[in-house]
Amino acid sequence: MTLDAVLSRIDADLPHALDRLMALMHIPSISTDPAHAADCAAAADWLAEDLRAIGFDARPCPTPGHPMVLGTGGETGPHLLFYGHYDVQPVDPLELWHRNPFEPAIEETPRGRAIRGRGASDDKGQLMTFVEACRAWKAVHGSLPARITMFFEGEEESGSPSLVPFLEQNADALKADIALICDTGLFAEGTPGIVTMLRGLVGEEVTITGPAKDLHSGMYGGAAMNPIRVLARIIAALHDADGRVTVPGFYDGVPELPEELARQWQGLGFDAGAFLGEVGLSHPAGEKGRTPLEMIWSRPTCEVNGISGGYAGAGFKTVLPARASAKISFRLVGHQDPLAIRESFRAMARAMLPPDCTVEFHGHGASPAAQMSIADPAFEKARTALSAEWPNPAAFIGSGGSIPVAGHFKEILGMDSMLIGFAHADDAIHSPNEKYDVASFHKGIRSWARILAALAA
Amino acid sequence: MTLDAVLSRIDADLPHALDRLMALMHIPSISTDPAHAADCAAAADWLAEDLRAIGFDARPCPTPGHPMVLGTGGETGPHLLFYGHYDVQPVDPLELWHRNPFEPAIEETPRGRAIRGRGASDDKGQLMTFVEACRAWKAVHGSLPARITMFFEGEEESGSPSLVPFLEQNADALKADIALICDTGLFAEGTPGIVTMLRGLVGEEVTITGPAKDLHSGMYGGAAMNPIRVLARIIAALHDADGRVTVPGFYDGVPELPEELARQWQGLGFDAGAFLGEVGLSHPAGEKGRTPLEMIWSRPTCEVNGISGGYAGAGFKTVLPARASAKISFRLVGHQDPLAIRESFRAMARAMLPPDCTVEFHGHGASPAAQMSIADPAFEKARTALSAEWPNPAAFIGSGGSIPVAGHFKEILGMDSMLIGFAHADDAIHSPNEKYDVASFHKGIRSWARILAALAA
Repeated sequence: MTLDAVLSRIDADLPHALDRLMALMHIPSISTDPAHAADCAAAADWLAEDLRAIGFDARPCPTPGHPMVLGTGGETGPHLLFYGHYDVQPVDPLELWHRNPFEPAIEETPRGRAIRGRGASDDKGQLMTFVEACRAWKAVHGSLPARITMFFEGEEESGSPSLVPFLEQNADALKADIALICDTGLFAEGTPGIVTMLRGLVGEEVTITGPAKDLHSGMYGGAAMNPIRVLARIIAALHDADGRVTVPGFYDGVPELPEELARQWQGLGFDAGAFLGEVGLSHPAGEKGRTPLEMIWSRPTCEVNGISGGYAGAGFKTVLPARASAKISFRLVGHQDPLAIRESFRAMARAMLPPDCTVEFHGHGASPAAQMSIADPAFEKARTALSAEWPNPAAFIGSGGSIPVAGHFKEILGMDSMLIGFAHADDAIHSPNEKYDVASFHKGIRSWARILAALAA
Repeated sequence: MTLDAVLSRIDADLPHALDRLMALMHIPSISTDPAHAADCAAAADWLAEDLRAIGFDARPCPTPGHPMVLGTGGETGPHLLFYGHYDVQPVDPLELWHRNPFEPAIEETPRGRAIRGRGASDDKGQLMTFVEACRAWKAVHGSLPARITMFFEGEEESGSPSLVPFLEQNADALKADIALICDTGLFAEGTPGIVTMLRGLVGEEVTITGPAKDLHSGMYGGAAMNPIRVLARIIAALHDADGRVTVPGFYDGVPELPEELARQWQGLGFDAGAFLGEVGLSHPAGEKGRTPLEMIWSRPTCEVNGISGGYAGAGFKTVLPARASAKISFRLVGHQDPLAIRESFRAMARAMLPPDCTVEFHGHGASPAAQMSIADPAFEKARTALSAEWPNPAAFIGSGGSIPVAGHFKEILGMDSMLIGFAHADDAIHSPNEKYDVASFHKGIRSWARILAALAA
């Protein structure tokens, strides 16, 4: 059988596939840090070259930021767009890593072998599962089972500033029957999921300025307004006592979960205690009256991702700082309007400014939530294919994370996305000691081979 | 007249006095940096040697930290303890200095000549005003007009860890009729002040921990408690809408300003608009119904000196951090109890912790406010002596800053302090390009000679 031969080839080639992934992980393609611009370009070159090696017509495409990689292959069958990103998160605090994040290696862990290093899971390892599936198919059959456009971004971890213009300018090349995205996780050990609801994201950096320069808190304390106090008041006002976000109009366009989906989610046996317990918590902290699964899959949120101001070094310095900043993000669902929420947040913060303080805002991305039309038979085909590979049947699930590209594919290209990924909750993406289970990588490649066969049939 | 001869001698010797000060300033005695321990010892040796040159029995006294310098001189008259500190603040950011901070020089400025370099004002220049007054007196009369104990500390800029034990172990040697401290400023150009009220200081570092590790705000946002939110709520709760501090019991022991002092302060012509305008502000931010002068001299405060948590670098990182910290300081007045306020603040913060969060506190100093008994005739004598030297009469003033040694002198040695200094608000102490006006130095030395004459009379 054609699929079996491909799966055997994947099993046999796994050591080389791991070597290729680790070669890509050696490139420190941190997109948010301008010092790594050349590394981002190098990662794009590496990928274009690797795609060419398996017969794709592939090249890095310049943007005002980091390059996109575009590759086309296959001549018959449905047209599939595969999306992944080759850029990675920063690695600080470096001292918490137990190895150099850009010198990856296979390590033994209690759950088996894992690839350790920045990008192992998010998203180099996941991206390569699809590339390797194509490579095996090509090796066995000499051709691909579908018309495949590869589309790799290098700015996913830094707000994707070039994405929308690039999609608009290359709509014809990128529009396919459906998009496949590999940047999500398994629903649970042994249970894959296809994400059909994705939260949107609005990122805001807010800087409060008070005095014209840092002051001595003994000389001025009490008389001069402290911008940290102002910022703390704004942050403290963002949630009410029931954990609801207070930004005016925030819940406009937030739907209640359809009963059918609610029932399906209840049947998933999600263990909220284990989910929180794994990270040292025991109480869901969000909206009163919502389950943790609702909170992360179907409810909007507001989080503070970073704060700074004044003296934060060792010891004590009695400074009354001129400035304080926070990075705040909103996760959106349903039909919440990212730009309306940004404006409402800014108006709320401005209204809380005392005399003598000014505020500056800097936006970091604004994408709506995405909801896929699972009536498209491709979803059921993929679900069946996944279920054949894994111990438990695959589920249609939500995702707490935001993969803005899915919203943009829908909006700009009129194309739904199937989000299928093999990451684990303990992969420590965005954290020190990121890893990707070798089993995720191996079964991920096999999963894509099965899905390709199913979609091509 | 004896005083006139001393003043003439001071005028004639000014160039040499400046040379001596600059020799001391060449020694980079940064007490907070262990790399400069030998420099601190060298500054102590230099001072002991200089005191011996004018007839004091003087020596550096070892402590677990940097040495103290003790010197005794004079055989008759009142017993005066003079306190100053020879250590200085770090010099970073070095690139903002327009000369090497430890290669001082006399520079021309719009207001006349100034000594530029680290420690020029805080506190080497101020300390030497008193030493030079003694030198001139000794040169003219062959003896000192009072029994004088010199006491120089080398850890004032790094929390004075050895001060209290040293005072306790050397109480007999140090207890005098009154202490003289030269580490404060003129009230205004041409108007000297004697500080009779000093705020105390409690420093607290508070760290909130939520999840066991940094999380992805998409995966966990909404369900996991964010420690920045908790910290912001605590900080926002520290003041009420009228700018009063809400820590329970905070105002216990805070006296209303005596009517007489209030009247005197009103007469000082303090220009609140100019005071705030100089740092780009126009509205006093403290307690409603208090003037800015009250706020900084006679009212207690709570300020946040620093805050940190999550990702604060360039760009955006959707992290839900495990930890957030703030450095918070309380300035105290009257009989506020530093330890009671520390405990009350800690209890308040603990009570605001949601489930799953923990808090750690780290104390950075706790000193009570100091209020001098100005009924002691020494205060009026010194005020008259100062008024003779300067264009405008001297005033009894408050100080927003905290000079903990004055509180310790009162508590441990039962001794009041007269805080007299000649610094200007624009001396840039703790900042790049610190300076001390040559006029402050010259008239400072003359002021001390006059005060010595008055106290000895």
